[in-house]
Amino acid sequence: MKKSILISEVGPRDGLQSIKTIMPTEAKKRWIKAQFEAGCREIEVGSFVPATLLPQMADTAEVTRYAASLDGLEVAVLAPNLHGVKAACEAGADKISIPFSMSESHSIKNVRKTHEQMLEEISRCVGHVQSLEQSQRPTLEIGLSTAFGCTIEGEVPQARVVSLAEKVVDIGVDEVGLSDTTGVGNPNQIKQLAYAIWTHCGRDKLNGVHLHNTRGQGLANALMAIEIGMTTLDSSLGGIGGCPFAPGASVNIVTEDLVFLLESMGYDTGIDVDKLMAVRTLVQEALPEEPLYGYTPDAGLPKGWPYQECA
Amino acid sequence: MKKSILISEVGPRDGLQSIKTIMPTEAKKRWIKAQFEAGCREIEVGSFVPATLLPQMADTAEVTRYAASLDGLEVAVLAPNLHGVKAACEAGADKISIPFSMSESHSIKNVRKTHEQMLEEISRCVGHVQSLEQSQRPTLEIGLSTAFGCTIEGEVPQARVVSLAEKVVDIGVDEVGLSDTTGVGNPNQIKQLAYAIWTHCGRDKLNGVHLHNTRGQGLANALMAIEIGMTTLDSSLGGIGGCPFAPGASVNIVTEDLVFLLESMGYDTGIDVDKLMAVRTLVQEALPEEPLYGYTPDAGLPKGWPYQECA
Repeated sequence: MKKSILISEVGPRDGLQSIKTIMPTEAKKRWIKAQFEAGCREIEVGSFVPATLLPQMADTAEVTRYAASLDGLEVAVLAPNLHGVKAACEAGADKISIPFSMSESHSIKNVRKTHEQMLEEISRCVGHVQSLEQSQRPTLEIGLSTAFGCTIEGEVPQARVVSLAEKVVDIGVDEVGLSDTTGVGNPNQIKQLAYAIWTHCGRDKLNGVHLHNTRGQGLANALMAIEIGMTTLDSSLGGIGGCPFAPGASVNIVTEDLVFLLESMGYDTGIDVDKLMAVRTLVQEALPEEPLYGYTPDAGLPKGWPYQECA
Repeated sequence: MKKSILISEVGPRDGLQSIKTIMPTEAKKRWIKAQFEAGCREIEVGSFVPATLLPQMADTAEVTRYAASLDGLEVAVLAPNLHGVKAACEAGADKISIPFSMSESHSIKNVRKTHEQMLEEISRCVGHVQSLEQSQRPTLEIGLSTAFGCTIEGEVPQARVVSLAEKVVDIGVDEVGLSDTTGVGNPNQIKQLAYAIWTHCGRDKLNGVHLHNTRGQGLANALMAIEIGMTTLDSSLGGIGGCPFAPGASVNIVTEDLVFLLESMGYDTGIDVDKLMAVRTLVQEALPEEPLYGYTPDAGLPKGWPYQECA
């Protein structure tokens, strides 16, 4: 029995919000449908932010409603505040992720809120979600962004990350996720932070990481996350995207390379690699000017892959 | 006390033999000297093969003699046969690596020798090295190439790799190394093969891996190697090079990214990252037409790096 790993595709959100080209709504729907049919079980389809700030995300409500019609797909979205969370609930999102920057300077620059103000906002969001009928309640996750370091503050103390994680769990969110927003993290940080959060918040409160490949360390960090027992990894088809508010941060982990790595090791991602490669073509057609990244698409699959001995 | 990891720079051999441009001898010497001064303690400086086959390596004897004059540098070279081993010993190499392809088809295509013929050749090489004065004897390592899979044969059975490793250890070589010649390996294969070889050949007989980044998995594989106790990792400055006889195989692990990963985790590579980056400029000047790879050089080092908490 192979161990299952959930790959959460963040390209339609993290990828598309980081590039200038606006992908037409119909192309987003085709992308989401194709990747769902390739076996992807969770897709972050958009961000509920003002269209004046991120015009690429202006159609998120419509895209979310469409994605929610795909039976069996976990529809994830990002929302930075109560306003966004309400809109996300209305559109039928299954999972809402609220980014909470562990660097207060980054938080103020990014969403103009101090840690205290963010905790109050998160409290209001929890209140809203808990006011809904049980069957209508999405999962609420706090993305602990800049958890591994910040382009403004530099090192972010681990004790601060753990303490803020505890606070949001106490407020009543379902989960926290570790986010390497600025692409500075290393495998030992992942291990240290994860164990500390598991100890202080409970083992079930942290299951996923959002990693970047800014310094080529993305898949090494992903490996450590899996080795210590994480079950969800974010990645972006073709590696497009990054953090628009963190100068220097570039690409996400490439979904194609991550699937190749995990399936080679004998994990079950549920994803059909050939179908996944075909999604790439579709995205490139919709974004002809944008570079796509990834090694496995260039090199192709090895002869006779997948091998039997690691299964 | 930080744990020390030896990064063996293979750019002057694996990198340069895989590109068409011939680097002038003086530029090779400058590269080796600069990288030694950046803290690199082992460099594979060339390959003792006929200049008609690899004109890029025609000056290996001279380069080896020069490198041997740098006090404290472990001078590694590659030699495919007795002829090369003799020349390497004469030039003053400290470590000679003989590539032995675990895929017999690849071996025949690469060096026109069956496994049986390679074992005989290795036996002659061991005989030659053992005939030298103790103080003149280089370390003899067998690089178990295509150990993780082959572009011709596909999957390579792990039992075969272990059995051939045992045979060369019985013949009397000092060490074996695992080599992902074709860039198909995954972390679980590294773990499985390493434990099997340690069990059958002795823990001290395998300490290093030669990994490629063909499918983006290079640093994940490097992480697993370090986690299970390997102490030597091969990498190439700027990621130049690959295997000229394995179609589809592209780049080596990038030294700059590997050093960033390991130093971030709190390992001691002995390498000064800023000085290493400067070597890159020098290599690019000598090879203006060749692309150099690497994420860390583009992104730069994180603010306040290295952090204290992972040290």
